[in-house]
Amino acid sequence: MAADHLSITFGALADPTRRAILARLTKGDASVTELAKPFDMTLPAISKHLKVLERAGLITRSRDAQWRPCRLKAQRLEEAADWVERYREFWEQSLDRLGEHLREMHRKDKKNDQRHK
Amino acid sequence: MAADHLSITFGALADPTRRAILARLTKGDASVTELAKPFDMTLPAISKHLKVLERAGLITRSRDAQWRPCRLKAQRLEEAADWVERYREFWEQSLDRLGEHLREMHRKDKKNDQRHK
Repeated sequence: MAADHLSITFGALADPTRRAILARLTKGDASVTELAKPFDMTLPAISKHLKVLERAGLITRSRDAQWRPCRLKAQRLEEAADWVERYREFWEQSLDRLGEHLREMHRKDKKNDQRHK
Repeated sequence: MAADHLSITFGALADPTRRAILARLTKGDASVTELAKPFDMTLPAISKHLKVLERAGLITRSRDAQWRPCRLKAQRLEEAADWVERYREFWEQSLDRLGEHLREMHRKDKKNDQRHK
């Protein structure tokens, strides 16, 4: 099966350096050298990450300018957000259950406190 | 660097079968055999995917019951949603720009039409 968009997007996001690069690009376009600076990484290592991000359609790189600035391209992230959001009711349910459980424990503690007074 | 939660979550989501398993589990707990049914996959292949999901904390598997049902555990997805949502303004900006571009083209087309009448 050809890798689908969503798998490629999630795969590209499954790395802290790549996520940090995307975060940096929210502040404006940047060259490879600029992107490499905050990371203790060689330019080839950063370039490899940029290739993954570019193939995933999460960044574009100018073909014209000498310094080939990278630019954030956020559209694919919308698809990822849509997928994850479908599960919102499930994590909210778990939080509700946790809250209910904590309230229940609190009630029991109070009962015990009264009994031992 | 130890793999961070978010990288592990996104890595687990970077596969269509694993995403389909999570989608199936929104409808209720299921055994490996039940999960394998809709996919043309062997039980060991499905088990491997379940291990990835379990390690990522996206499912839990009962230790008690013989059939060891899998259950969705959606909390980690909230963290993923929070991360992706930070980029919302950027994909919405791109849509705005696209809309502006299309309106601009439409205006030009209309002008040309009038000129050639």
